[in-house]
Amino acid sequence: MEEQEGTLPQKSDFSGWYNDILWRAEIMDVRYPVKGLYVWYPFGFSIRKRVYGILRELLDRDHEEALFPLLIPETEFMKEAEHIKGFEEEVYWVTHGGTTPLDVKLALRPTSETAIYPMYALWVRSHADLPIKIYQIVNSFRYETKHTRPLIRLREITSFKEAHTVHATWDEAENQVEDAIARYQEFYDRLNIPILISKRPDWDKFPGADYTIAVDTIMPDGRTLQIGTVHHLGDHFSKTYHVCYEDSKGEQQYCHQTCYGISERSIAALISMHGDDRGLILPPEVAPVQIVIVPVIMKKRETEINQAAELLAKELQDAGYRVKIDTRDMRPGAKYYYWEMKGVPLRLEIGPRDIDNGIVMAVLRTGGKESLPRSSIIPEVERKLKEQTDALLNRAENHIKDHLFMVNDASALPEKVLNGVAAIHWCKNRECADRIEEIADASVLGTDVRTSLIDLCTGNCIICGKPGSLVTLVGRSY
Amino acid sequence: MEEQEGTLPQKSDFSGWYNDILWRAEIMDVRYPVKGLYVWYPFGFSIRKRVYGILRELLDRDHEEALFPLLIPETEFMKEAEHIKGFEEEVYWVTHGGTTPLDVKLALRPTSETAIYPMYALWVRSHADLPIKIYQIVNSFRYETKHTRPLIRLREITSFKEAHTVHATWDEAENQVEDAIARYQEFYDRLNIPILISKRPDWDKFPGADYTIAVDTIMPDGRTLQIGTVHHLGDHFSKTYHVCYEDSKGEQQYCHQTCYGISERSIAALISMHGDDRGLILPPEVAPVQIVIVPVIMKKRETEINQAAELLAKELQDAGYRVKIDTRDMRPGAKYYYWEMKGVPLRLEIGPRDIDNGIVMAVLRTGGKESLPRSSIIPEVERKLKEQTDALLNRAENHIKDHLFMVNDASALPEKVLNGVAAIHWCKNRECADRIEEIADASVLGTDVRTSLIDLCTGNCIICGKPGSLVTLVGRSY
Repeated sequence: MEEQEGTLPQKSDFSGWYNDILWRAEIMDVRYPVKGLYVWYPFGFSIRKRVYGILRELLDRDHEEALFPLLIPETEFMKEAEHIKGFEEEVYWVTHGGTTPLDVKLALRPTSETAIYPMYALWVRSHADLPIKIYQIVNSFRYETKHTRPLIRLREITSFKEAHTVHATWDEAENQVEDAIARYQEFYDRLNIPILISKRPDWDKFPGADYTIAVDTIMPDGRTLQIGTVHHLGDHFSKTYHVCYEDSKGEQQYCHQTCYGISERSIAALISMHGDDRGLILPPEVAPVQIVIVPVIMKKRETEINQAAELLAKELQDAGYRVKIDTRDMRPGAKYYYWEMKGVPLRLEIGPRDIDNGIVMAVLRTGGKESLPRSSIIPEVERKLKEQTDALLNRAENHIKDHLFMVNDASALPEKVLNGVAAIHWCKNRECADRIEEIADASVLGTDVRTSLIDLCTGNCIICGKPGSLVTLVGRSY
Repeated sequence: MEEQEGTLPQKSDFSGWYNDILWRAEIMDVRYPVKGLYVWYPFGFSIRKRVYGILRELLDRDHEEALFPLLIPETEFMKEAEHIKGFEEEVYWVTHGGTTPLDVKLALRPTSETAIYPMYALWVRSHADLPIKIYQIVNSFRYETKHTRPLIRLREITSFKEAHTVHATWDEAENQVEDAIARYQEFYDRLNIPILISKRPDWDKFPGADYTIAVDTIMPDGRTLQIGTVHHLGDHFSKTYHVCYEDSKGEQQYCHQTCYGISERSIAALISMHGDDRGLILPPEVAPVQIVIVPVIMKKRETEINQAAELLAKELQDAGYRVKIDTRDMRPGAKYYYWEMKGVPLRLEIGPRDIDNGIVMAVLRTGGKESLPRSSIIPEVERKLKEQTDALLNRAENHIKDHLFMVNDASALPEKVLNGVAAIHWCKNRECADRIEEIADASVLGTDVRTSLIDLCTGNCIICGKPGSLVTLVGRSY
């Protein structure tokens, strides 16, 4: 990429910063010759691997991973009327095998309900087969006609984690919804990304769901990014695909289902929430390189310094850290710039004077230089990385607080949603919502908000003044 | 699956056995409503995860994992004439997004040369950028018109590991070919699957390659299964896609490339090589459950027995083993049948008398019952699992030896290739090959054979009698 000059735009120019950091930090190459399709560089893929490793770890507690086909025959796809209405303009169709037209067109899954549930109909027989909790991590496809954006709005979603569960009753499915929300909360806690959980208004729920709970975060420019959804499907799909069980009285009952998904938007949020004007900042848990060691060479002690660096690296690796030594023939400053761009949490510098003094210089990516005693480097490094994690979370929470405004006066909405998300009171009446969206030039994102980042008091509807409304979020979303 | 009765066909009826074991052991569900597409059950997927974990481990030593798009624009796909000729009848085409016809048709990758190499053209600038060694594990697609078969001949290959490397010179690429072969040998060693490595005849090489080295194994019915290929691509693709580097003299040079792949056929081989009349037999390294503990309950000591089983499980888990206790309310015999079908390497039975005697009864899936002292259970279990691994390898090697025949007389070919693979001498003349294939009603699989399972002497061509020919394999392949 040496031909692309210049520096990273400031993060305050978020759009420019985001586009630039993707290639400067080697996350994604946007030059693939089809709109909306991107290439994961090895470095980006390695972040992805760790992020999805956390997701797997959380789900594997009581879910099983499986894999269903990408191609869905039109006949199955078209069965659930509401669902297909939600997706029909977005589906890619395979129509030919070689030069032969196919008898039945095949859809590239936009999501896998219609691929999985015909199988569930075969798998579920009796109450004893329930619950089923299965997930898969797959590519899925949307023919997006809007402006596409790497990791955020794609035509090939490369990394869709979708879970699909089956239960005997509506209430058990509701419990699963709560369980999934808790799991997603845990996931984003691990990434130090504060989230806003809310119930999407009825007109914005998943096609075919009873209701949708969404996980949003607020991006640096104040717009929200949906980074997870959990759907209670009731028995809509089980009626269409005949997912039934025999109850204890020997009677056939329709199952109740849920599904919930997270895509590579989780990584868009990770990059955007934590990065700064100098590049990425990665939480240690998902950083491909957690510690970079830069030997500060003085010619006549070169061998000694390199050996000390290698010994240090070995000790840290043995303690389980992912470490690189940068011995390239470059100015130290250029090395610092390189590893800061890649978001490496901790840099350790080791030079002749450090060796003499029995210390190592530590520079945290979130800021601050400190000399650490070489003899207790393992606990010291652990402490420093913890310091970074805390700093990231603290910063991220402040960012959300700074962009989440309690608004009691409708006329203040336009200005507030330009800078972030408005928390208002709304009576859940559609007409009032339309009016809110019109005034704010933004969307009603959700009700029944769960967050500790704002006071969840009740109040009067911002439009009609009806009392007792819960907090509702209004904002511009990606 | 309780409605599907009967028992597993004997392995001597390989085709029936293979079809049946896939659902009985919960590897794949073949009932997905599109020909050639199958569903990975969680149990099967869990085997897949471990098998591909080995592959990743071997490649991650000096390769990087990345991810390229599934969809390849027709314009790129059509650039390499020889390559497209090899695939044009097999490619699925996406022609519509929603109801809108696409400007440029999109191919579902049958393999990713045409998706990756335009990016490599952007990534490679100078000698310093070389070598590139990248792999991805992805779904890929072939519109198979022949008889499809789960894991073996699919329309969606769900688990294609493809590596693509770039080098300065032809010789460096050749070294990479050798390196890849060694890596694949190591991979199949870990799975206890003996392989035959050979050079495909020129007319059977990968479209666009200088030459192809193939990895085959012999299935229970004597037919070969290609379970890996390594291609030296020379500069064919680099000329088409302009993958060039500037050499030390400042001159532009075409790169030399290799690619090599392994698919879920590796799992077909794993299942087929090791399984027996009672079901799967899995090498411990890839078994989702390595040890099953069956408490042998005597009513009045039930609590004590269950506690002993849990303590045993805990101790084994702490030592790193994947363990299940089967406490289901079933006859022990039914439990044994169940876990044997799933290929669990070791069963431990623990009953009142075992507790009294300080022992645990161990039954290896490959056969043999032995009482192990409870006090040294960890090293004892390790020894037993090693015993199984050795037994599997030994059996597999004997299977190959029993189905690999040195044949010096062309008239003996038809009978030999009905039962396995014939090793012959051939002069590398196409006319002699045609004659061999006609007589044998089988294919010339490869020359320059590498294996320790047969004597690799030279001899006279089986057709024309020309002396000095190396060993060549002839057989019927899947």
